[in-house]
Amino acid sequence: MPVKLTPPSSSSLSPVNGVELGFAAAGISQPNRKDVLVMKLAQGTHVAGVFTQNKFCAAPVQVCKTHLSETAGIRALLVNTGCANAGTGEAGLNDAKQSCEQVSQLLGIKNNQVLPFSTGVILEPLPVDKLMAGLPAAVSNLKQDNWLNAAEVIMTTDIVPKGTSRQLMLSGKPVTVTGISKGSGMIHPNMATMLAYIATDAVISQSTLDAIIHYAVNKSFNCITVDGDTSTNDSFMVMATNLAGNEEVIESGADFMALRDAVTSVAVELAQAIVRDGEGATKFMTITVEGGKHEAECRTVAYAIAHSPLVKTAFFASDPNLGRILAAIGYADIEDLDINALQLYLGEVLVAENGAVAAGYQEAKGATIMQASDISVRVMLNRGDQKATIWTCDFSYDYVKINAEYRS
Amino acid sequence: MPVKLTPPSSSSLSPVNGVELGFAAAGISQPNRKDVLVMKLAQGTHVAGVFTQNKFCAAPVQVCKTHLSETAGIRALLVNTGCANAGTGEAGLNDAKQSCEQVSQLLGIKNNQVLPFSTGVILEPLPVDKLMAGLPAAVSNLKQDNWLNAAEVIMTTDIVPKGTSRQLMLSGKPVTVTGISKGSGMIHPNMATMLAYIATDAVISQSTLDAIIHYAVNKSFNCITVDGDTSTNDSFMVMATNLAGNEEVIESGADFMALRDAVTSVAVELAQAIVRDGEGATKFMTITVEGGKHEAECRTVAYAIAHSPLVKTAFFASDPNLGRILAAIGYADIEDLDINALQLYLGEVLVAENGAVAAGYQEAKGATIMQASDISVRVMLNRGDQKATIWTCDFSYDYVKINAEYRS
Repeated sequence: MPVKLTPPSSSSLSPVNGVELGFAAAGISQPNRKDVLVMKLAQGTHVAGVFTQNKFCAAPVQVCKTHLSETAGIRALLVNTGCANAGTGEAGLNDAKQSCEQVSQLLGIKNNQVLPFSTGVILEPLPVDKLMAGLPAAVSNLKQDNWLNAAEVIMTTDIVPKGTSRQLMLSGKPVTVTGISKGSGMIHPNMATMLAYIATDAVISQSTLDAIIHYAVNKSFNCITVDGDTSTNDSFMVMATNLAGNEEVIESGADFMALRDAVTSVAVELAQAIVRDGEGATKFMTITVEGGKHEAECRTVAYAIAHSPLVKTAFFASDPNLGRILAAIGYADIEDLDINALQLYLGEVLVAENGAVAAGYQEAKGATIMQASDISVRVMLNRGDQKATIWTCDFSYDYVKINAEYRS
Repeated sequence: MPVKLTPPSSSSLSPVNGVELGFAAAGISQPNRKDVLVMKLAQGTHVAGVFTQNKFCAAPVQVCKTHLSETAGIRALLVNTGCANAGTGEAGLNDAKQSCEQVSQLLGIKNNQVLPFSTGVILEPLPVDKLMAGLPAAVSNLKQDNWLNAAEVIMTTDIVPKGTSRQLMLSGKPVTVTGISKGSGMIHPNMATMLAYIATDAVISQSTLDAIIHYAVNKSFNCITVDGDTSTNDSFMVMATNLAGNEEVIESGADFMALRDAVTSVAVELAQAIVRDGEGATKFMTITVEGGKHEAECRTVAYAIAHSPLVKTAFFASDPNLGRILAAIGYADIEDLDINALQLYLGEVLVAENGAVAAGYQEAKGATIMQASDISVRVMLNRGDQKATIWTCDFSYDYVKINAEYRS
């Protein structure tokens, strides 16, 4: 079960002026399940995107990149679940383009003004006829207050729909930021993974929006890991409809900071929700590494801890197994790392220093901390002033069960 | 249970002229369990070693490195199980030195002619008094034909003792190569991991022996992985007593190739035995990546597949889940990798090419291959002529169980 994660209510997801959402049950992999989402964007909307680094990236990701390079006037997003359209070669590219084509006809826009996204089983052809047959219904129910339905459409193995909103004032005008997400890192390999969409009505240029998405992704989706695998379809989009009537948000101004922080806050909540809903997760772990020379080395150490199956199984067992954490720090391959100079904390308790168990540490203290469902691990490297935080979950019987039995 | 791994018999492990082995039950962590091993080496023996890259390396590893830098005349190895003497700070270093001191007194050699090794629980002090109390008994039963006992002494969570021998002729003289090993990569984090010892009576210089150990380790222990974690105590030693009467083995001669290949063959068998006895292992997987620009990129791709928890759980389930393997190749971060140019084989069956499932592939074929206990995965990158092979095992419920319940 998800770790301390409650689903959003319909009223908690605020509509964003200029964004309409419609959905349908197209029977892509299951009958009577909402599996197609169309997001229609007002003219003048700016769209920024970050995509998977996986070389084996899916057909829709390739089409998204092409369309974004061809036009600044994206007017619609199309998302389907049930099939990832990944590992489908030329046929998959044609299927993705064909589905964009139909959305463009239904909405009276150009083909390359549509961005396609897919999530679901890899290596199976997209049932494009079913998808296209569902599109008229999706377009016919486009509404501004369909965000909760949209969050439900994009779920695959997610147990809980994920969404959240923020309200802020920019130059005296109310501005909304609303986002939804699905998936769990590469927690479910055949279910092609992480999708997140954040929309705002703020007035902002394309380049300033680009600056915000890169800041936000590095503080959120790039800070989570479930099992270290990255998917073929990961996509994170931020859309600004420019309809809020605020003065244009200029990079480095106070409004920029406010909007950037609101988008980042939504992204962090959506990213953490993915980890809390990780497959088989029973614990939510915050790994912070401080005192590094560079942020990069802090991230490397944090990821070494977060990815270690041995650390993850110890957390599952609520076992304060310090040796596993220290060993992970040791093999993180940080040049000239002095193991004797670092301190390791579980929660607020100093558990190791000088290359050994801390003098005052008692195992009972560690065991108490490990009982909680939210646990923090903090490493002080004491060689600089940089830091990084990674969120992850534990590794349980259910992780193996879900992933071993997924296709049977 | 181990995957197709039978224990050696006492007669299958040939004595090596110049190597005597003695053992004792010192009660380090359990009563009445053989837990101390002394290997006495004839004068003139050359010793070469490769140690863990983990920055958090154990006290005995540090002492080994110091002693090897101080003298070329190593005369004894001391190994204990039950405690890794890792994460023990200054006290641990003193304990390791003190135990060497006593071995040197019992054998009439110098303190720094002894190399110490420990394996067992991390972060607990070495019970050095118990260890030292056991040493006279170990020294009193030194014998050349104690190799199987030695293999049993060094076991921790190993189910099966690991050892093998080779005989060869060098310049008309019979030469023996015998080795033992324990552990499973960083499969058992508190049980400090991989130890391997190979001895030969061949006449060979120190520098030529160094060349052989580096060749052998890259073809064997550096090709195995269980869960990607590397331990604090990993050590691999090759010893040559120089007593076989052969003409000195010169680098690049035919005898060099013969001895190198015999040592490597022993190392490969010992390394594969570790994987076959991996925690919870039910499958032994050989991952071969061919046609790379460099061996390094082939290894990177092979490790990405071998370390993916998603691939490993699919193998546990005997599920020919090709998408997981392709996704792992895709995130291996190989520059300019063309996914459409590669072929993926399961056993002898071509399962994917042109970025999609191969035209003739039927899932039933893949399913049949996945039923076997030994499975090969082969990736043809088609961009060069280099290759690499990695051996690993699957990820089962028992892996989680063993590692979650280890200390409870």
